[in-house]
Amino acid sequence: MSHKVRIALDAMGGDHGASVIVAGAELSLARHPDSEFAIFGDEALIAPLLAARPKLAAVTRLVHTDVAIKMDDKPSQALRYGRVKSSMAKAIDAVKKGEADVAISAGNTGALMAMSRFNLKTMAGIDRPAIAALWPTLRGESIVLDVGASIGADAMHLVDLAVMGSAMARVLFDIERPTVGLLNIGVEEVKGLEEVREAGQILRERDLPDLAYHGFVEGDDIGKGTVDVVVTEGFAGNIALKSAEGTARQIGQYLRSAMSRTLSARIGYFFARQAFRTLREKMDPRRSNGGVFLGLNGIVIKSHGGADAEGFAAAIDLGYDMVRYELLAKISRALGEIQRGTPDSPAAAPQLPATEDSVSEASASLISTTQAIGGAVS
Amino acid sequence: MSHKVRIALDAMGGDHGASVIVAGAELSLARHPDSEFAIFGDEALIAPLLAARPKLAAVTRLVHTDVAIKMDDKPSQALRYGRVKSSMAKAIDAVKKGEADVAISAGNTGALMAMSRFNLKTMAGIDRPAIAALWPTLRGESIVLDVGASIGADAMHLVDLAVMGSAMARVLFDIERPTVGLLNIGVEEVKGLEEVREAGQILRERDLPDLAYHGFVEGDDIGKGTVDVVVTEGFAGNIALKSAEGTARQIGQYLRSAMSRTLSARIGYFFARQAFRTLREKMDPRRSNGGVFLGLNGIVIKSHGGADAEGFAAAIDLGYDMVRYELLAKISRALGEIQRGTPDSPAAAPQLPATEDSVSEASASLISTTQAIGGAVS
Repeated sequence: MSHKVRIALDAMGGDHGASVIVAGAELSLARHPDSEFAIFGDEALIAPLLAARPKLAAVTRLVHTDVAIKMDDKPSQALRYGRVKSSMAKAIDAVKKGEADVAISAGNTGALMAMSRFNLKTMAGIDRPAIAALWPTLRGESIVLDVGASIGADAMHLVDLAVMGSAMARVLFDIERPTVGLLNIGVEEVKGLEEVREAGQILRERDLPDLAYHGFVEGDDIGKGTVDVVVTEGFAGNIALKSAEGTARQIGQYLRSAMSRTLSARIGYFFARQAFRTLREKMDPRRSNGGVFLGLNGIVIKSHGGADAEGFAAAIDLGYDMVRYELLAKISRALGEIQRGTPDSPAAAPQLPATEDSVSEASASLISTTQAIGGAVS
Repeated sequence: MSHKVRIALDAMGGDHGASVIVAGAELSLARHPDSEFAIFGDEALIAPLLAARPKLAAVTRLVHTDVAIKMDDKPSQALRYGRVKSSMAKAIDAVKKGEADVAISAGNTGALMAMSRFNLKTMAGIDRPAIAALWPTLRGESIVLDVGASIGADAMHLVDLAVMGSAMARVLFDIERPTVGLLNIGVEEVKGLEEVREAGQILRERDLPDLAYHGFVEGDDIGKGTVDVVVTEGFAGNIALKSAEGTARQIGQYLRSAMSRTLSARIGYFFARQAFRTLREKMDPRRSNGGVFLGLNGIVIKSHGGADAEGFAAAIDLGYDMVRYELLAKISRALGEIQRGTPDSPAAAPQLPATEDSVSEASASLISTTQAIGGAVS
C-alpha cells in the first residue's frame, strides 16, 4: 500500500472535545507524515484550532456537522437522532464510502458501535463485532478481546475472535504466528464453559497457519503476557479489563500515600523520582489507548473518552498501524482459512437491512448486542 | 455463644504440608485462646510438630488418617478414593457430626468443594454453594462472591449470593446493613445480562432488612470499595479475582525492577524502605487469605495452597470469626426473609442422596458444578 493513510476523526466526542482531538492529530501527524485527515464537527470550534496548526491544516479536510452524539445517550437514541447527520456518523460514513481508511472517535462507545455496525455491516461470516484492547504485560503488550461489544459467545464466535485478534497481533507486533489463549477458570482441559472447551478443541484440531493455539489461560495470565492474544466473550472480558484497571489505580494510590507519609519516604521519593517516572510511564493508560472494533467492513477505533491529546494521538497511531499493515485484508484471509474448513459455518449470515426505513427495526436488534458496551473502553 | 470455637484442620493439604498447618494453628491460637483444634493427618508427621508446641497440643486432638487428597486430582477422583478416609473428608465430617464448628484446608479446591457438598449438603433453599473471597480495597475490605464455585447463575441464585455475602459482611465488618452491588458491565439499568437485571429488580423491590442494595457495579468498583459485597456468578468472579491478582503482581514486578535499576533509585529505596514495607503489607495476599464456602450446612474455609504459616493462620482467624459471630444462623435467618417473599422459590430443593451406594451418581452430578473451581482460591 503506497497511498496516504486517510483518517476520519469525530471531533465532537470525548470529555474534552475538539481541542484534544485536533491537538492529538497534530502529534500523530508528526510521527506519521503520510497521514491525511478528515475532521468532522462544529466548524466554528475546529477552524481556529486548525488555523493555529498550518502543517495539520494542510493535510486536513474540515467537514462541518450540526449534530453531536451525547456521551450518555443509549445507542438506540443516538441512532435515532444521529445516524446520518452527526459528526460520528459522518466519520464512519467516510470509511464506508472509501473516502477514509479508518474512523476514530472518543465519543459514546455504545453509540459508536451501533453506528459502525449499522453503517459498515459485519464482515461475511461474522455475525457480531468485537472490541479488542491492548493490554500492557510483563512481556510487552497483548491483545484482549472481546472487552464488551457483546455478551456471551458460542464456540464459533470464540474461534472468530481468535482469528481476528491474531490478525491484529500480526499487524501490531509483527509476528508470524501469534499465540492465542482462551480465557477460562482453571487450566485443565476438563474445566470451564462448554463453549470455551469446544472452541479450544476446534482451534487445536484446525491448527491454523496464522495463529498458534496455546490452550486455556486464567485471569492472571493476561498481565504475565503468557499469550499474545487472549480470547473471551464480552462480559468476562470487560470485567477482567475493569478489575485490572481498578487494581492498578488502587496500588497507585497506596504508593502515593506511602511515599508522602514520612520525611524519610519523601527523601526516598526524591532520589527515586526517575524510577517512579519510568513506572508511571509503564502504567500510563495513554500508551495503550484505543479499542479496535473488529469484524466490520471497515476499521473503527474507540479512544478513551477521558484521553488527553497524547492519549488521542495514541489512538490515531493505532488506527494508522491497522491501515498501513492491512488489518482488514489479514482478517479476511484468516477468516477464509477457517471458513473453508467449516461448511456449516454462517459464512452467508444475514446482514442487517440497510434502507432508511428499517432503521428502527435494525436499531432495536442492535440494542441487544450493543447495550453491553457502555463501559467497555470509555 | 459461650463454648470454645472448635476448628477442624486438614493437615495434609497445601503446597507446604503439615508444618505450615500446625504452625498456623499456633499463631491463631495465640490470638484466639478460646479455640480448640482437631487436626487430621499423618500422625508420624504431626505428632512431633505438636510436641514442640505444648500450648497448642493441650487444646488439640490429633486424628491419624492414611489417605491424603492430591492437589491436582479432579474432584471426582478425589471423591472416589478419599470421600471417607482422607484427612480432608474427616475434617469436614467433624463439622457434619457437630464435633467441630468449622473445617479448614489448604488442599485441592475442587475436591474440598465436592467433598463439602457431598458431606454437608446445601442449606434449604440453596441449590449451589459459592466461594466468597475477601478483597482488599481503598476503603478497607469487601467480599466478592462467587469466585469460582459454579459457572452461571439465574436471578434467584444471584439474590441468594447477595443474601449470603451480606450475612458474611455483617459477621466480618460488624455493620448492620452492608451495601451490595451486582457486578455488571456499564452501570445503567438497561445494560448487562438479563439475569443480572432481574436480580437487581428483585433486590430493589424486596428492600431486605439485612442488606442495602446499591445497584450495578463495574470491575473497577471492586478495588474502590464502592460496596461491601460484590455479587457475580463464578466465571466472571474468578476472572475478576485472577485479573486483579495478576495486575498486582505485575505492578510489584515493575516497581522492584524500577527501584533497582539506578544508584539513585537504590538510594531512594533505602530511604523509603519503611514506606515500601507498608505498601507490601497492604498488598500482602496473606492478610486476606481464605475463601469461605457459603450455602452449606456447615462452615468450610479454603486456604490458599501456597500459604505460609501466617497465611494459614489468617484462614483460621477467618473461620474463627465466622463461627464466633454466627455466620450460619445469620445466613439462615436472611434466607428465611427472602424466601418468605417467594413462595415459588426452591425452598425444598432436592438434596443429593447421602447413602454410600449413590456416591458415583452424586459425584457425577457434582462434577458439573465443581469442575469450575480448581483455580478459584488456590
